[in-house]
Amino acid sequence: MQSQISSLGEFDLIQRFFKTQSELMLVSNPGSVKMGIGDDCALLKTDPAEEIAITSDMLVSGRHFFVGANPEWLGWKALAVNLSDLAAMGARPMGFTLALALPEANSAWLEAFSKGLFAIANQFTCPLIGGDTTAGPLNICITAFGSIPKDKAILRSGALVGDDIWVSGAVGDARLALAALRHEIELEKGDLEVIEARMHQPTPRINLGIALRGVANSALDVSDGLLGDLRHILQQSGKDAEIHLEQIPKSRTLRKQSPNIQNQYAASGGDDYELCFTAASSLRNAITKISGDLNLPLTQIGSIKDMQNHSPKIQLIDSNGARLNPEEVNQLLKSFDHFA
Amino acid sequence: MQSQISSLGEFDLIQRFFKTQSELMLVSNPGSVKMGIGDDCALLKTDPAEEIAITSDMLVSGRHFFVGANPEWLGWKALAVNLSDLAAMGARPMGFTLALALPEANSAWLEAFSKGLFAIANQFTCPLIGGDTTAGPLNICITAFGSIPKDKAILRSGALVGDDIWVSGAVGDARLALAALRHEIELEKGDLEVIEARMHQPTPRINLGIALRGVANSALDVSDGLLGDLRHILQQSGKDAEIHLEQIPKSRTLRKQSPNIQNQYAASGGDDYELCFTAASSLRNAITKISGDLNLPLTQIGSIKDMQNHSPKIQLIDSNGARLNPEEVNQLLKSFDHFA
Repeated sequence: MQSQISSLGEFDLIQRFFKTQSELMLVSNPGSVKMGIGDDCALLKTDPAEEIAITSDMLVSGRHFFVGANPEWLGWKALAVNLSDLAAMGARPMGFTLALALPEANSAWLEAFSKGLFAIANQFTCPLIGGDTTAGPLNICITAFGSIPKDKAILRSGALVGDDIWVSGAVGDARLALAALRHEIELEKGDLEVIEARMHQPTPRINLGIALRGVANSALDVSDGLLGDLRHILQQSGKDAEIHLEQIPKSRTLRKQSPNIQNQYAASGGDDYELCFTAASSLRNAITKISGDLNLPLTQIGSIKDMQNHSPKIQLIDSNGARLNPEEVNQLLKSFDHFA
Repeated sequence: MQSQISSLGEFDLIQRFFKTQSELMLVSNPGSVKMGIGDDCALLKTDPAEEIAITSDMLVSGRHFFVGANPEWLGWKALAVNLSDLAAMGARPMGFTLALALPEANSAWLEAFSKGLFAIANQFTCPLIGGDTTAGPLNICITAFGSIPKDKAILRSGALVGDDIWVSGAVGDARLALAALRHEIELEKGDLEVIEARMHQPTPRINLGIALRGVANSALDVSDGLLGDLRHILQQSGKDAEIHLEQIPKSRTLRKQSPNIQNQYAASGGDDYELCFTAASSLRNAITKISGDLNLPLTQIGSIKDMQNHSPKIQLIDSNGARLNPEEVNQLLKSFDHFA
């Protein structure tokens, strides 16, 4: 087979691993897609009652994933991180483009990658509508499109004083998985598998985002660490926040670690792809109902305050109700930066 | 300065080189952009009378450009190749996202890159609306969006028997520049400069694409070589073509080369970013008028024929009116393939 594979050209690759499955998806559910892969551009139909949300993420070997990472997981995650951005605005997926640089036309790699990619694409009805393939160091760039009723997008800038601050699911697991894979922390085998899946195959909270339209005043997805990302809401809304560390939701596995590790990973671990949002405290019952309907834990972790100085501040409260000092806060606020 | 630069984080980079200029463009001409850089997603307003064309291209160091290439040219070209795809459908640019992997946060490189990028973005009123930056081997991925009146997109599949086949501008110059830069061909200095600009800073034929709405039956942009790309129109339209080699438009500089080089570079050189389109022969006057209005040569190079076999065929005619034999045709048809 190898000789055949090495002779696969760009058009064959696209046809074999991407175009056919893309067409299958579009036949069963064209949605807004008027034209997918095959012409100079894809074409989307528009709805005058809707706006279009657009997000783009680039995943690079050795930075966003380990060299030699499982390609099926990669396919899943590359789309998941984009869908997570759509979810944070309250958008419903319409489709995505994929640009892929590969060191070689490796058929086994591409088969596994496309399996993971189409698994999540099908789960969230988000068809592949176009893209590009080229030879080069492994690089996966996905741009995703979503629709959202006019003026209903949930922005980072909408937080109001008195809003509750909520987080979906649990945070810190991906950071724990990273520590385990780096042998910094020892986990039981069963725990490692669960926690690794959270790292490699995060679930974008699309249905939550849609349910939060008209409910949440602000939202974003937690990709770089909860408190660091929350800072973006505070900056764009011009507010402070108070967070109860104890209340940040942690998985059963993370709760087996020391309180220090628990707090640090949950507060600033990154790669969580949960939603952090704020909503009026009068809507607690509505949010509890959304949580039940979606079978997804939603946890109130603090509240939005008036901004005291020129820059937004997060006041952290420990389990004894005491305020952490600035040094302790800084430790927890360390959010990763792709050029740090 | 160097110490400052190496401490620039991701957010600083985006702010300094991309976000401010993006905001300036949007203030003066928001167009359909409701929200640009700064939230989880960008937001586009929609118009019920329009469809949205989407295209994505990834440029990789060492493949699409030389290692150490002039970053200002790169910024221009990365957006130009995407705008060329929009032009081929007849779309008007709405905006684009940029995902950029960089080996280091090099301020001088970024300044030059963004200069070239915003020069073409401003020229074609196509604002940067979002994206991603990361550390990694140099990789530039742009996804561009355009609007087009409902059902007016010019597709590859619309060519009709009897259509004239047209090409804009001249083809083969980028291939000639490549040969000169590789020292395979010697050019006079003045010629080299002109021809290099054609390679590094191609002009997307946006206004031509818009003018061809309702005029052309099919179109695409010439990126991989004229005859190889024409094959896509023939495949998708189920047609054959007859092309007069002599009539393929070549620049004054290319016409100084041997007839063999002229024909090969013009027929299959690649990187031209001209439009190839087909239109009813009754529209020759209309097309001549478009050419005059846009001050852009449009040259008829052949015509669309009934398909004789199961696969589309291009019949090439030489300057004596003789048909080239299949061997000669194959030589000219060699179109580059990113995995070949």
